[in-house]
Amino acid sequence: MCLRGVDRGGRGKHLSSHFQAQKTVTMAPILINCMGTEQEDYIKPQIHVKNPHLDLMEEDILYHFNLGTKTHNLPEMFGDVKFVCVGGSANRMRAFAKFMHQELGLPGDTDEITDICEGTDRYSMYKVGPVLSISHGMGVPSISIMLHELIKLLHHASCRDVNIFRIGTSGGIGLAPGTVVVTDKAVDSFFRPQFDQVVLGKVIVRSTELDADLADELLQYSREMPDLPTVIGNTMCTYDFYEGQGRLDGALCSFSTEEKLEYLRKAYDAGVRNIEMESTVFAAMCRVCNLKAAVVCVTLLNRFDGDQISTPHEVLVEYQQRPQCLVAQFIKKTLGLI
Amino acid sequence: MCLRGVDRGGRGKHLSSHFQAQKTVTMAPILINCMGTEQEDYIKPQIHVKNPHLDLMEEDILYHFNLGTKTHNLPEMFGDVKFVCVGGSANRMRAFAKFMHQELGLPGDTDEITDICEGTDRYSMYKVGPVLSISHGMGVPSISIMLHELIKLLHHASCRDVNIFRIGTSGGIGLAPGTVVVTDKAVDSFFRPQFDQVVLGKVIVRSTELDADLADELLQYSREMPDLPTVIGNTMCTYDFYEGQGRLDGALCSFSTEEKLEYLRKAYDAGVRNIEMESTVFAAMCRVCNLKAAVVCVTLLNRFDGDQISTPHEVLVEYQQRPQCLVAQFIKKTLGLI
Repeated sequence: MCLRGVDRGGRGKHLSSHFQAQKTVTMAPILINCMGTEQEDYIKPQIHVKNPHLDLMEEDILYHFNLGTKTHNLPEMFGDVKFVCVGGSANRMRAFAKFMHQELGLPGDTDEITDICEGTDRYSMYKVGPVLSISHGMGVPSISIMLHELIKLLHHASCRDVNIFRIGTSGGIGLAPGTVVVTDKAVDSFFRPQFDQVVLGKVIVRSTELDADLADELLQYSREMPDLPTVIGNTMCTYDFYEGQGRLDGALCSFSTEEKLEYLRKAYDAGVRNIEMESTVFAAMCRVCNLKAAVVCVTLLNRFDGDQISTPHEVLVEYQQRPQCLVAQFIKKTLGLI
Repeated sequence: MCLRGVDRGGRGKHLSSHFQAQKTVTMAPILINCMGTEQEDYIKPQIHVKNPHLDLMEEDILYHFNLGTKTHNLPEMFGDVKFVCVGGSANRMRAFAKFMHQELGLPGDTDEITDICEGTDRYSMYKVGPVLSISHGMGVPSISIMLHELIKLLHHASCRDVNIFRIGTSGGIGLAPGTVVVTDKAVDSFFRPQFDQVVLGKVIVRSTELDADLADELLQYSREMPDLPTVIGNTMCTYDFYEGQGRLDGALCSFSTEEKLEYLRKAYDAGVRNIEMESTVFAAMCRVCNLKAAVVCVTLLNRFDGDQISTPHEVLVEYQQRPQCLVAQFIKKTLGLI
């Protein structure tokens, strides 16, 4: 694994200097994946943008990032990105960028790490070396807008061999609070490993299968780290935090405690170990676009025991760092730093 | 209308001093709506929390607001709220709070208006007099979490006679960019005036009907204002900005320009004049909880003409102020200030 990691890191450096020489290119060929040589395809997996219309556009404005192909040199800004980490909270993703800066031993002050999407408050984006850290807000629609623009960004920047991680928080089912769940399958509210995408008023079903090797690798690394209880399990993705997750403490609730527990038990029997609000669309879009993806979420509470998050703030902060530590370990191993 | 406005304003002031006297109450009776006297019910419409479990809870932590019934005196903080304005962007909702502070002629510096949810970056909340301004992020799940906690907050604070407005941005259908759409019916991707809520793995259908009188009143006020082209029309709410709204410029697109235009034409024929991502759950939840609600969104582009938002920044900023100006006019009229 370590050798594989060093190899990847070396390729990254080579790729980076390749794009340094392309500074005058303001827009990468959009459908390069259809034109790559066999040799290129063999060396590094490409990101597949699945949209023939993009090829015909003179300019691509990534509106919610406040970036664009005419206004920004995306290959220069992002060409060396190898790891993308996304999470709901902007503050947490800034903290993660600072943490990675230290972990990678990069020069300079962490206070100088600035938000690349500064001109908008829709998302925040930070880059430290080959790591991109981006916030996605809460829920499927919010992360889906971000992923569309991120995938186009990586494509315009001609990035290759990119791993993407969602590092987040979740409610656990039958696990001690603080347990990290690496997602096996992302499932919907009916425990199906699928994402239903409405396109022009018709429902298209997409698979939510994630990269099994990546999940196994993360589980293995977690075992080498102290205080990082980690399991692999299914993750249920809902469109609602209260009624959709069987909480008894929303403004609306029409079911009993027993009905709630019955639903959670059914979820547990279907292999679900945690519940969050973004994993299905994340898995589905990354899969279609050939991005190796993992979902790594810590559980803040055991839903069999309650609904409200009443754990002290400092404990929650420590829990939230666990997925960050695990993904940082993966990145350092892959880069051959440890 | 103006008389009705003055009347409401007077009641607001009376209610405010009523709650000032209740400072020692840290948690309002949760199901007061089941216990109110007939006289109270006659005077001011109450907010209905539809959850019998809340009554049994010793404490209610509004996790995503970083507020709670034991840690905060919600009646004192929010008892006089009469107008709640919500929108996607935190920056825009701060700007709206400052704008309302000036419009209402309140004393003090607008720079002193602070984020009540400062301890979290999930949402931002500002209060200026009887006006609460809150951000909700993007998409149905994000606004739904906010609405659950907002409705509980208004209930714990014993607020009555509250009007709520979503002021946002949208894509227009067959309208000049910059047109404000006051929503008649919020419809889903299949043009149905309904919101499908998954509860414990079962789908519950809720009506998305909004307050027709409130919409008419807003339309009437818009006619008194210069440069505020306004129509009443249906608003389509989607779960996705790209494929779900028929955009040709996402990372994924499997349809042709003609298929896109056909879908938009069908939407137009169904009375849809704009597309956004929050209106159905907003309408549905406010209706169930007895909150008088309106959706007021400006169109940033005409989707028959394109998908990308390439309008200059300063023009977009002016467009975004239009729903704010219209709702400010409503608030001032209701308070008898004009």
